[in-house]
Amino acid sequence: MANSERIPEKMNVVAISAPGGPMVLKPERRDVPKPGPGEILIRVHAAGVNRPDVLQRKGAYPPPKGASDLPGLEVAGEVAAVGEGTARWTPGDRVSALTPGGGYAEYVAVHGSNALPLPAGFTYTEAAALPETCFTVWHNVFERGRLESGEVLLVHGGSSGIGTMAIQLATAFGATVVATAGTPEKCAACVKLGAARAVNYREEDFVAAVREATAGKGADVILDMVGGSYVDRNLTAAAVEGRIVQISTQGGAVATADISKIMIKRLVYTGSTLRPRTVEVKGAIAAALESRVWPLLASRRVAPVMDMIFPLGDAWRAHERMEEGAHIGKIVLDVGI
Amino acid sequence: MANSERIPEKMNVVAISAPGGPMVLKPERRDVPKPGPGEILIRVHAAGVNRPDVLQRKGAYPPPKGASDLPGLEVAGEVAAVGEGTARWTPGDRVSALTPGGGYAEYVAVHGSNALPLPAGFTYTEAAALPETCFTVWHNVFERGRLESGEVLLVHGGSSGIGTMAIQLATAFGATVVATAGTPEKCAACVKLGAARAVNYREEDFVAAVREATAGKGADVILDMVGGSYVDRNLTAAAVEGRIVQISTQGGAVATADISKIMIKRLVYTGSTLRPRTVEVKGAIAAALESRVWPLLASRRVAPVMDMIFPLGDAWRAHERMEEGAHIGKIVLDVGI
Repeated sequence: MANSERIPEKMNVVAISAPGGPMVLKPERRDVPKPGPGEILIRVHAAGVNRPDVLQRKGAYPPPKGASDLPGLEVAGEVAAVGEGTARWTPGDRVSALTPGGGYAEYVAVHGSNALPLPAGFTYTEAAALPETCFTVWHNVFERGRLESGEVLLVHGGSSGIGTMAIQLATAFGATVVATAGTPEKCAACVKLGAARAVNYREEDFVAAVREATAGKGADVILDMVGGSYVDRNLTAAAVEGRIVQISTQGGAVATADISKIMIKRLVYTGSTLRPRTVEVKGAIAAALESRVWPLLASRRVAPVMDMIFPLGDAWRAHERMEEGAHIGKIVLDVGI
Repeated sequence: MANSERIPEKMNVVAISAPGGPMVLKPERRDVPKPGPGEILIRVHAAGVNRPDVLQRKGAYPPPKGASDLPGLEVAGEVAAVGEGTARWTPGDRVSALTPGGGYAEYVAVHGSNALPLPAGFTYTEAAALPETCFTVWHNVFERGRLESGEVLLVHGGSSGIGTMAIQLATAFGATVVATAGTPEKCAACVKLGAARAVNYREEDFVAAVREATAGKGADVILDMVGGSYVDRNLTAAAVEGRIVQISTQGGAVATADISKIMIKRLVYTGSTLRPRTVEVKGAIAAALESRVWPLLASRRVAPVMDMIFPLGDAWRAHERMEEGAHIGKIVLDVGI
């Protein structure tokens, strides 16, 4: 382990003191982790807040075996130390990284392959807003969903962190986007980001809107984090040979649907979750992002939509904000050391 | 159109006189079709009977636009005449062909690319039992489901025409097969064909059987024609990264299922129906079959399982037999001219 600076023994973190509401998020002092082989230790400047953090706080999403019990799945900061076999990184490098947990802290150890250089001109808070949305959208929309230029993407939750990134990336790669969101303000944000059509799902039927926007053809790819009552409607909204990618089931995991539509339209209904994937798989996604997406960030063709930034110690406020559901884009913690 | 023999103006067929039970199948005299560009006229010696024929007879499955109103999706016979642009075939060639309908007749016109040579040593009745099962299994299990050597295939309806072919082909290509069927006799037939494990679904839970047969891992590919209550159980029986391919919904199209399993296990749930595909797609499947499957038939490594053969005029008895559900393998009509 090569050090560029004096790394303290102890650090400030925000931990889940017990399963419960936002107020169970409490500051603690913890040992600074040591980077193992292939890992880097990041001095965290900013950490992204994600819905799985909220579920973990409620006790509904225990961290995978071997992962930190601290919440936080993405950070940006400087490399403070490197473990064996991390030739790419040197202490002082500025990185944005997917973490296996432990992001709500002053230091976190991640596999070197799961870190990317900060896009040129990006602040740490912006860079901390990238990994979860970029890894998720790239893998699910482009790799799993195989969205192609000229096709139509239907994005549910269009104003969420993932939704806002999906709209921008799909548009940048030549697809037409229809997005759903729950308020006129959120719909306006989707259109501003490039969506050809935004559907206020409280007032309009997205199936009819997609039909109208595609001359009856349907959506080639659907990115869904709702599930529940959306499942059958997604099957209806999909085009022949369409792909539906499920990345969460915020509206319920159990659904009743006419599955003959899968057969008759030759759909592909798939999905994934990011956290349990191996570091190798995450590293492969990172490599694809660096070549295909990072240039779009550096040129500001695509940028994370920033909702609000809270100090690490106020992580509970960040969670309240997310649970209220009024946010547009990403909520980030400023770790500020 | 080049003729090798005198082709009559009129032919004997069995038509659906009105929607209804087996007895609505009645002999009629019809004009012999003329092969269009790219088509061949086949003098039919034998025609396969399939479940879509039964649905069509009941009025539940109208033939696609432009197709014959006569039932019959597969035949074997001799080429009687060829249309323009069918260089491959010459009158007198013995072929097995997928038809767009019209198989219950002495003559049928099909696209030349949708015909294959009779496998060496095959009778016409055996050859007429091949197209529907081979095209369906090849496309859904190997192309769409991407079954690989060393993987586990779960086949529902293991003793059906499609099931018996799926068991044999999957086994021939190095996969392990678990099959479900509804009687001890049918289960024995599945095992005889190569299934490592046959599950009598009336007595045993196929999810538990698959779990046991795969050391908890689950099935890599599931070929399902049931739907309904099987949908959620298929999601449970599938391995991580498993593929479920729906080819019919005999147990009901509407299903209630926990779709978070699609996401958590990164499943691919897809399906297809054969009849509406273009002649180009069917031709591509035929080409794959000729190179990958026909050699296995010629060597008798794989053979159609023949249930019963009825004369064309007794097509109603063939439908009764299929609807009783006691058959194992294929039911074929001997057109016998």
